[in-house]
Amino acid sequence: MSLDRTSLIPALKNVATRLRIDSVRSTSEAGTGHPTTCCSAADLLAVLFFAEMRFDPKDPHNPESDRFVLSKGHAAPILYSCWAEAGAFDRADLLNLRKIDSDLEGHPTPRLPFVDVATGSLGQGACAAIGTALNARRIRSDYRTYVLLGDGESAEGSVWEAADVAAMDGLDNLCGITDVNALGQSRPTMWQHDMEAIARRWRAFGWHAIVIDGHDFDAILDALAEARRTKGQPTMILARTIKGKGVSFVEGKEGWHGRAFKKGEELDRALAELEQQFVGAPAGVNLPAQIPKPASRPRAVDAPRPVAPPAYKPGEEVATREAYGVALAKLGEADPRVVALDADVKNSTFSDKFEKKFPERFYQNFIAEQVMIGAAMGLAARGAIPFPSTFACFLTRAADFIRMAAISNVGIKMAGSHAGVSIGEDGPSQMALEDLAMCRAQPNITVLYPCDGVSAERLVALAAYHPGAVYIRTSRPKTPVIYGNDEPFVVGGSKVLRQSAADRVTIVAAGVTVFEALKAHDELKAAGTLVRVIDLYSLQPVDRDGLIAAGQAAGGRFITVEDHYAAGGIGDAVAEAVAPAGFTVTRLAVREIPRSGKPDELLDRYGISSRHIVDAVRRLS
Amino acid sequence: MSLDRTSLIPALKNVATRLRIDSVRSTSEAGTGHPTTCCSAADLLAVLFFAEMRFDPKDPHNPESDRFVLSKGHAAPILYSCWAEAGAFDRADLLNLRKIDSDLEGHPTPRLPFVDVATGSLGQGACAAIGTALNARRIRSDYRTYVLLGDGESAEGSVWEAADVAAMDGLDNLCGITDVNALGQSRPTMWQHDMEAIARRWRAFGWHAIVIDGHDFDAILDALAEARRTKGQPTMILARTIKGKGVSFVEGKEGWHGRAFKKGEELDRALAELEQQFVGAPAGVNLPAQIPKPASRPRAVDAPRPVAPPAYKPGEEVATREAYGVALAKLGEADPRVVALDADVKNSTFSDKFEKKFPERFYQNFIAEQVMIGAAMGLAARGAIPFPSTFACFLTRAADFIRMAAISNVGIKMAGSHAGVSIGEDGPSQMALEDLAMCRAQPNITVLYPCDGVSAERLVALAAYHPGAVYIRTSRPKTPVIYGNDEPFVVGGSKVLRQSAADRVTIVAAGVTVFEALKAHDELKAAGTLVRVIDLYSLQPVDRDGLIAAGQAAGGRFITVEDHYAAGGIGDAVAEAVAPAGFTVTRLAVREIPRSGKPDELLDRYGISSRHIVDAVRRLS
Repeated sequence: MSLDRTSLIPALKNVATRLRIDSVRSTSEAGTGHPTTCCSAADLLAVLFFAEMRFDPKDPHNPESDRFVLSKGHAAPILYSCWAEAGAFDRADLLNLRKIDSDLEGHPTPRLPFVDVATGSLGQGACAAIGTALNARRIRSDYRTYVLLGDGESAEGSVWEAADVAAMDGLDNLCGITDVNALGQSRPTMWQHDMEAIARRWRAFGWHAIVIDGHDFDAILDALAEARRTKGQPTMILARTIKGKGVSFVEGKEGWHGRAFKKGEELDRALAELEQQFVGAPAGVNLPAQIPKPASRPRAVDAPRPVAPPAYKPGEEVATREAYGVALAKLGEADPRVVALDADVKNSTFSDKFEKKFPERFYQNFIAEQVMIGAAMGLAARGAIPFPSTFACFLTRAADFIRMAAISNVGIKMAGSHAGVSIGEDGPSQMALEDLAMCRAQPNITVLYPCDGVSAERLVALAAYHPGAVYIRTSRPKTPVIYGNDEPFVVGGSKVLRQSAADRVTIVAAGVTVFEALKAHDELKAAGTLVRVIDLYSLQPVDRDGLIAAGQAAGGRFITVEDHYAAGGIGDAVAEAVAPAGFTVTRLAVREIPRSGKPDELLDRYGISSRHIVDAVRRLS
Repeated sequence: MSLDRTSLIPALKNVATRLRIDSVRSTSEAGTGHPTTCCSAADLLAVLFFAEMRFDPKDPHNPESDRFVLSKGHAAPILYSCWAEAGAFDRADLLNLRKIDSDLEGHPTPRLPFVDVATGSLGQGACAAIGTALNARRIRSDYRTYVLLGDGESAEGSVWEAADVAAMDGLDNLCGITDVNALGQSRPTMWQHDMEAIARRWRAFGWHAIVIDGHDFDAILDALAEARRTKGQPTMILARTIKGKGVSFVEGKEGWHGRAFKKGEELDRALAELEQQFVGAPAGVNLPAQIPKPASRPRAVDAPRPVAPPAYKPGEEVATREAYGVALAKLGEADPRVVALDADVKNSTFSDKFEKKFPERFYQNFIAEQVMIGAAMGLAARGAIPFPSTFACFLTRAADFIRMAAISNVGIKMAGSHAGVSIGEDGPSQMALEDLAMCRAQPNITVLYPCDGVSAERLVALAAYHPGAVYIRTSRPKTPVIYGNDEPFVVGGSKVLRQSAADRVTIVAAGVTVFEALKAHDELKAAGTLVRVIDLYSLQPVDRDGLIAAGQAAGGRFITVEDHYAAGGIGDAVAEAVAPAGFTVTRLAVREIPRSGKPDELLDRYGISSRHIVDAVRRLS
């Protein structure tokens, strides 16, 4: 900054006072919100936005712009106030906070152009910030990422997953600030104002930690400068603050979390106090006008080339998880935006095929699925096409991140391997039997489930360019290639694998159960019963028209068969799709907690093998 | 122990060699498994089981028995070997590892009497161990809890949630041992053998950390003794080990994770090496026979008294979340086994009503949902009836723990508040719209969803005594009491709230949508259309017979309406239940990512208000 501190600090103090006034006023107008959590952070954010960050209020998505993630998302009102103060929109809009027709929601979402990922589920911001920091490396930009955490949310394990990964990756372009106001929602936080105890934790996790008084502007300026100078490791500024700072009758008091001041005497008293905190500042100082704009460097457009097609022989045995790895490497070749994230299972998911070719675009998260998904969210928000993959069952570890990814509508392309009982001997802890339910529950997550090598490669390529989040489910066992290398696939499609004019039932399968359905078809055909077999490789969206057409051709009788629990998977998807035509569905699915055994034994024991399909057809037809 | 170390250690060494041989042999027989991860832990477990823990191999559930949790669940073969060595079952059974008819599964599950909770999803064991350690306090037993972690899994955030909570609770009856073998599945671990870096982390989190050579028997004995002497804080023994220790050609080598030795030359070579490691030991030493048995103190039986009934007036406005708190406090009064766990939202879920009465049975986990659920699992496994509660959306943070709770079949009684868009202004990050899908996906989780104060209290009491895991969904807004205080409720039941002989449609609702359905009923009735209204308070199991009977009486037309996304919730539950009768369902549910607004505005905007029900009825009938 060009200003010396004797001019700068009074101006920053006045910004902070305005941010507090906005936060108090807008929450009172809404009748709901978290003014006291805004007040503790006001001085920190005043300095960060108006004396540190480089950004263009009118172009928040500028690729060279510093990023800010508000991990303590309930402080949303002050975030909005910062952007209004910076000139991004009219300050009067702040009074529309939390109204149904305003994008100034209770917690930030990317409906606002200056929000990369939705926050409000605590402990996630630092993970997303790793993603935006990694993206700076990817695009060779010197933009920095700042993330504001609460001390309360630092009890979330995901924060420590982020701490590990950021330190391991040496992300010195990442700066955390923890607003240590010592009060949680319902009680004092764990470590309260024991700043050294908190600092020990960050230092032990490999960060440069700086303890400051979060209401001392000189200290805040110094700490941010020190963070900028710190190389080879991320910095965490631990700022001792007072919740409700500036409003004396709530300062440091329990019972004020998530409470707006009541309009009337209570609000008036708070505002009157705050108004008195304006200080004399040198004339002509206009901090918003002095925000350093990001460099606008010319950048080559990342034009993707065509993805190399599958190259299998019919009948060749290949696991879809392996085809996923092949496809990922091909995608990496075609498009520099494609990156991959692992949680120490790259040799099982075959994402190591990508790592071998593109080690600089492969991000290892060790055994920490939350930060893997969170980092992918940050990467996706900044223009990368991230493929995080692990065992499908361990994606449930990141279920809340996946929920927030859906709310953020970011294009993370998740792949889960080792689906279902067909993994065999490792037993139920390693079997994903609820992953389809988890991902289908989110209305804007696309769910794809290939059965062979060709469909796996094609669906991975489709996933990369389909808008929003996608989940691809792969299987452990090898399965024969049934599609030609040129077979076309579309999101929302399905394939009729067997049909005749005399079909009595439609069997809908996906993944490994496609082969059980084909076996059942052959056995039934030999006995004179014809059935239609559909590969439902796209579960969300689902091919409603195709399914209804099959129903109309095959007596309106459907059997679904899935290597998944009964709720939330293929049976439910098909049942909802065909209901408008008046068709119902008989479901074959895993209906109890399974156990260890050989894959074929387990498919049979849990009712989803060809034998069970044949029986179900015979009962129906 | 009565033996001096010159006699003890050679005997322990021979135990360790037998454990290694068992682990190698059983995994080779299975053709799958993790022998090298067993070998690194063999010396640690030999000492722990045969020179430290007090237990009765024939009575693993003895309430005074020391507990052992194998957090690194893939080392299951050596766990089984320890129990076989101790005499719990015949050593020959070890060769049935991973077979479909054996309970010696790929990863441990409570199908085995000596396993409290299933492990195999990494990073969960320390959380469960907190539960068993808290339970010792609850029942005033001096039993100790030991948990063996891997260094790789220590990247999971849940481990650090556990670290925080155990330190905060001063659990000096808890002793962790980390088998630092420096190799993960696909690569070296994050901190490899930097023992001091690892120790710094545990110390920073408030633990007493001891660094040892994990193959030095004296050091292991000393460390366990030091842990026993350490008061006021938990101890973590950080044991530097070598993966594959004892089999020279794999020791410390990458590429051997999860690989059994091939039968034939490879296995023979490994076994030959191990056999040579037996040492001369003093005659007559029989370590298994010397395992100290737990005290068998007489204990009063915890006989529950009747739970005080609800005491509401008809029409009284009460939020089901508040009734949950009232019910929990009443349950606490009736049954000393009832405990409650919070994640810093007790004043929103109203679990603070329980805390006020029973502070010693209330466990605060701060903002850390994984350890809350994990600790509840450990408590439930040891006879407590734990009610962990938080906002329903934040239970998704613990989805993988809930999955493992289902596999463990432990009786945790989860309550999630603030379900659906009806929470209003806080916005989507705070709205649970996938929690029913998450819990219904598990085949053995009971799912209950009260709509008023009476049903909330009754369902909470039912949950306490219903076998297995239960999920109770509560709502934020106040709703009128519609049931009499004596109204009976059963798991798997439903209530017909409105009916006539001329009903044209059945509306199935639960929670807040019950009142939308009742409003729609009245409006339709005024216009001459009669509809049946069902309160589906039990979603899993579901009242199939009741629903089909309604369908038969009301033209086979169903409309479901739910404050939840379309997949995995009420619509799917009803559709599957009535399909055998040939009935289909029209679903009203939230079908896009919602936003902030007032509750009524949101119910209407997202298609689940009475107006939408009326429209749907008119379209159908």
